[in-house]
Amino acid sequence: MKIIASAPGNIFLFGEHAAVYGYPAIIASVDRRTTVKIKDVSGDKIRIKSQLGTIEAKLNNSKLTDRKISNPELEIIFLFIKQMIENFSVKCAFEAEIESQIPVGSGMSSSTAVLCSLLGALSELADRHIEPQSYFDYIFPFQRQIHGGNASGNEIVSSSIGGINYITKENDEVKRVQFSNIELNAVIADSLVKSPTKLTVANHIPSLIKRRRNDVFSKFNEIQGIVEEAVLLLSKEKLIDVEEKQLGNLLNLNQDILDKLYLSHPKLDDCIDEARKAGALGAKLSGSGWGGIMFALATPKNQDNIKTALESTGAKTIVSKIGVEGIIIKRK
Amino acid sequence: MKIIASAPGNIFLFGEHAAVYGYPAIIASVDRRTTVKIKDVSGDKIRIKSQLGTIEAKLNNSKLTDRKISNPELEIIFLFIKQMIENFSVKCAFEAEIESQIPVGSGMSSSTAVLCSLLGALSELADRHIEPQSYFDYIFPFQRQIHGGNASGNEIVSSSIGGINYITKENDEVKRVQFSNIELNAVIADSLVKSPTKLTVANHIPSLIKRRRNDVFSKFNEIQGIVEEAVLLLSKEKLIDVEEKQLGNLLNLNQDILDKLYLSHPKLDDCIDEARKAGALGAKLSGSGWGGIMFALATPKNQDNIKTALESTGAKTIVSKIGVEGIIIKRK
Repeated sequence: MKIIASAPGNIFLFGEHAAVYGYPAIIASVDRRTTVKIKDVSGDKIRIKSQLGTIEAKLNNSKLTDRKISNPELEIIFLFIKQMIENFSVKCAFEAEIESQIPVGSGMSSSTAVLCSLLGALSELADRHIEPQSYFDYIFPFQRQIHGGNASGNEIVSSSIGGINYITKENDEVKRVQFSNIELNAVIADSLVKSPTKLTVANHIPSLIKRRRNDVFSKFNEIQGIVEEAVLLLSKEKLIDVEEKQLGNLLNLNQDILDKLYLSHPKLDDCIDEARKAGALGAKLSGSGWGGIMFALATPKNQDNIKTALESTGAKTIVSKIGVEGIIIKRK
Repeated sequence: MKIIASAPGNIFLFGEHAAVYGYPAIIASVDRRTTVKIKDVSGDKIRIKSQLGTIEAKLNNSKLTDRKISNPELEIIFLFIKQMIENFSVKCAFEAEIESQIPVGSGMSSSTAVLCSLLGALSELADRHIEPQSYFDYIFPFQRQIHGGNASGNEIVSSSIGGINYITKENDEVKRVQFSNIELNAVIADSLVKSPTKLTVANHIPSLIKRRRNDVFSKFNEIQGIVEEAVLLLSKEKLIDVEEKQLGNLLNLNQDILDKLYLSHPKLDDCIDEARKAGALGAKLSGSGWGGIMFALATPKNQDNIKTALESTGAKTIVSKIGVEGIIIKRK
């Protein structure tokens, strides 16, 4: 038996960072995926290969022992697998391979896509079907750890359910509205500047809140206003040209606020400037900032121009529909 | 016999990046040093320990063979040692220890300080005295390699000779004027964001020149104007208050241009804003940008205030006289 599970990476259309403090955000899955291939094997060994290294352990009555982890960065992946094996009472040994098209440390939530596809594969291996909307509960505690204590968890919703989602939180309950009418295209640029999410989410923003609490939260409130305007546009049946331009403008406004919170990066600014000059409807960073990716809202007509302009900066680009299918599980 | 050689780290007061293209710059050594302790031993083994790892090799007639390098980042250090051993006909085996107070990858030219102190120690071991002004010729080819092909070499002049130096280049000949009248103090902040010099010097600026040649060089010309104004001030016997403020203002202007060349970093901007609010005469990044350090021009009266303000951002600070002694070699 062979199982193939895959989950997409994501971009924050609006509201990253504020989302960590309970503010609403709009997040979308994009056309780069992480895939886990898993097959049951005889014996009592499990073995997981990925580009970061290898995890090996002994499986005995749904417990893992005698672990060997070739790279300390895989520690959290191991703990997740261990927990899921216990949750689903996985009894059979297996070999798994993790392959990712999502650049690590780029802000497209590669770690979330890994956890989602592992959850999909392991639950399927145990003949358990987990609803995509339940992925959040399994994965969130681990994502918090990866991000250094603070996390919105929005990436989990997006990677598992897919599409474009407006996510709000009330008393720790996650509410979600999916937009499915509007077709949007992005050109995503990876600045190639690595920035661990921890640096901004766990260090910088808390230090800024300590110094200028009112200022930071008034900026988060402004972001909330932008998110709410975007929701009105995305809820329409179709966007006319001027409304697409409005949506792009909201991206630019969100970027301005992130910039004032010291969250951009000169190379992202360089890319954003080039994308706007090349006709992007709007452009902003996505995710943690200080590196990683930005994206431009493009039309089928100007996306090639924007791609060329972004590549002239030395960045690597991805052209993608905004909002693609979430978790996909296949059994062979 | 034991030899102790040390060399200081540096800050660019004015002109980094432009200097890589032959423009003038003003650079100063600061009060954090790298120290090499070396002692001759019997046998034919050399062994160098540093915080990055260990280099071992066999010495035979001033040639090194059978090398063992525990960390690939030490490769260039090994090549430098090998070359210097040949240059100075070092015949006796030795053990060396490299210790540094200069944070690696911070823009205070820790790599240059390592090479300078190694050169000092190895030449002394061979009973050869190298004039500080000749250090440049020995070290420059290696610094170019470390910086990915492009380098100004100004850090070598500063680490070896010390003080505050105005450096110009004519037909590849390095000219130098040292300012020794003016006492200046800096509060330096390490943003803790690591940025390999290569990313900006070998990738970003060349990509910008390719796209907007005239714009980049007109900004380098503006920087040259700032450097020349600063030279007039630093050549005086003493600065009155308003002149100190002028010097600080020139730092701010240089920072603005670096920012427009997409060379700053939000965390540096955060530090710069805090330093200015705390009364700094001026503040700018130093070195490659995209992380690393910034410094504030301070007075004895406000330097504690500035230090506190910078630390509130989460940065690590160093208070230093601007312009300290260059290479120091002691034999015990």
